[in-house]
Amino acid sequence: MSRFFSSELSGIEPYVPGEQPKDRKYIKLNTNESPFPPSPDVLDAVTREQTADLRLYSDPTAAELVNALAEVFGTDPQNVFVGNGSDEVLAFAFYAYGEKGFTGPDISYGFYPVFSQFFGIDYSTVALKSDLSLDPCDLINAKGSIVFANPNAQTGLYLTPEQIRSVVESDPDRVVIVDEAYIDFGGESVIPLTKEYKNLLVVGTFSKSRSLAGARVGFAVGDGELISDLNTLKFSFNPYNLNRLSIVAGAAAVRDTEYTAKCTAEIIRVREWLKKELTDRGFEMTDSMANFLLVSHPGISGKDYFQRLRERGVLVRYLGDERIKNCVRITVGSAEQMEALVRETDNILAEVDK
Amino acid sequence: MSRFFSSELSGIEPYVPGEQPKDRKYIKLNTNESPFPPSPDVLDAVTREQTADLRLYSDPTAAELVNALAEVFGTDPQNVFVGNGSDEVLAFAFYAYGEKGFTGPDISYGFYPVFSQFFGIDYSTVALKSDLSLDPCDLINAKGSIVFANPNAQTGLYLTPEQIRSVVESDPDRVVIVDEAYIDFGGESVIPLTKEYKNLLVVGTFSKSRSLAGARVGFAVGDGELISDLNTLKFSFNPYNLNRLSIVAGAAAVRDTEYTAKCTAEIIRVREWLKKELTDRGFEMTDSMANFLLVSHPGISGKDYFQRLRERGVLVRYLGDERIKNCVRITVGSAEQMEALVRETDNILAEVDK
Repeated sequence: MSRFFSSELSGIEPYVPGEQPKDRKYIKLNTNESPFPPSPDVLDAVTREQTADLRLYSDPTAAELVNALAEVFGTDPQNVFVGNGSDEVLAFAFYAYGEKGFTGPDISYGFYPVFSQFFGIDYSTVALKSDLSLDPCDLINAKGSIVFANPNAQTGLYLTPEQIRSVVESDPDRVVIVDEAYIDFGGESVIPLTKEYKNLLVVGTFSKSRSLAGARVGFAVGDGELISDLNTLKFSFNPYNLNRLSIVAGAAAVRDTEYTAKCTAEIIRVREWLKKELTDRGFEMTDSMANFLLVSHPGISGKDYFQRLRERGVLVRYLGDERIKNCVRITVGSAEQMEALVRETDNILAEVDK
Repeated sequence: MSRFFSSELSGIEPYVPGEQPKDRKYIKLNTNESPFPPSPDVLDAVTREQTADLRLYSDPTAAELVNALAEVFGTDPQNVFVGNGSDEVLAFAFYAYGEKGFTGPDISYGFYPVFSQFFGIDYSTVALKSDLSLDPCDLINAKGSIVFANPNAQTGLYLTPEQIRSVVESDPDRVVIVDEAYIDFGGESVIPLTKEYKNLLVVGTFSKSRSLAGARVGFAVGDGELISDLNTLKFSFNPYNLNRLSIVAGAAAVRDTEYTAKCTAEIIRVREWLKKELTDRGFEMTDSMANFLLVSHPGISGKDYFQRLRERGVLVRYLGDERIKNCVRITVGSAEQMEALVRETDNILAEVDK
């Protein structure tokens, strides 16, 4: 830190992304990416001609992408906002609606308190229950704006649209942000509810089900006035926030709903297989509806399991939060990757059992 | 604006990017893009394999791009920061160093006061002299951190490294941001001075000389502690701020210094030709060192000239600021584009002369 750095920011603790080691080739199961490439339509969309056109600025309204999302979600383009990954979308939403503070679950996406710190917003948490599920009543009684991931980050546990409706309806004077990064792996989106409620903002990403983590595309769907707020902030921070190639790649990906459905169905199938395999080996886990499992084993600590997998070339995520310090989070990858994970797990369990 | 929007942000006036009309095909000279495609190396770098790899997150340190910049600038990677366009880089720099306010020229890049509003930072201006040049002494006497574009936005007028050194040295307790978006069209960069001064941050972009406006790549070079500040903010806002394709495209572009030099030499040649042609027709203009000219004509108002060019399919920028309200800003494009501009200008002057 330099001595010029704003004193108000000096205590900020940045988010720590999942590691990307380059020392060897890993089976990478630590950042919940898709094991599948983007839709063939995406590969066809990023042409040499599109690359040559990079000399020109991108469309600051990203109309091609916004229109594709609106079409697929059956909403108006004025109800859709797009950003440089859902992180940027969330950042703008925190800034827009943080005046009275935010409340979120004590275990969720680790970036929510960081956005709050960045913008000087009060951030409170409600504790997940002992089974790591989120009680909507706790959110109803919380103060300020509300944010949570559904399915929840780290746990994969899920609230139904009717449970979310109860939170949104409980106080029409506050904004409820539902971060649906993992919704496509078996959950039901609450995007349709945005037509009924002016205080519901649904945030989504192309990084998981649409296989475009590296393109940095995120979005929000909500009432036109909420979307207008986000655009006010975007045009005061970085109007050309999406590059040309990500706009065409994103539009192609969102329109190929069939491919996305095929990929997510396979990930769900593999996830359920993995749940059974790990349970058979004595693991405990939440009943995840996301593309990851949060698992622990009575015979080995989370940190030890993480490290031994890493030594064997399998990278999972050790989160370290107190309440889940014995757990690791494993991205559900391809069937082959999961078979390798189970094989290495067997080796590790045999080792520690000695 | 929704009723939920933070009251502190409600007065924010977003930046207005240059128009991108889709009603017809224009000779687009309104946003200072390059008339040339990116380097052939960029076209080769964005492959189908790279697109398939979009399933994976980008490297949050963007090491490939940072290393390429460090190599070309003869500095260490720890002295280089990269962002989603120089707008994002500038935004972080304003937030980092805005505690005591910022001062910039009254005519410059229109985004400086917007960043300040976004982050609740005081923004003061010093007036350019009557010839629209910037007097470094006025900056020396200014309060808070300093920001200016060199060559200056809108005017294209230029301060020498020794003039900038006097500003940087005048107060080692404040940060001086030099926005070198247009430096490659005849100016001399002050990047070498960043090794001498801990309070100098030089910001650059790939949008002009490197023909990558649509890839959204910007950078900053400065003392390692300044770069560390910017990384603290980036990792608290959007760690994966550059997408994978822009990282490889940017790295290829920055390494092909020969191509950039060839393109900028041609733009300089055409600029000087255009200066002479327009001067011969009675236009007045600043002696721009950038890839644009700021011109006015005694026989036609800036707004009228802009509109008549637009009707004829030539898009230039009418900025409308009081002090330059009779001017239009014309991007220096290809020789053919400039010949078309001169031809239409002759037609317009003949019209208004009747």
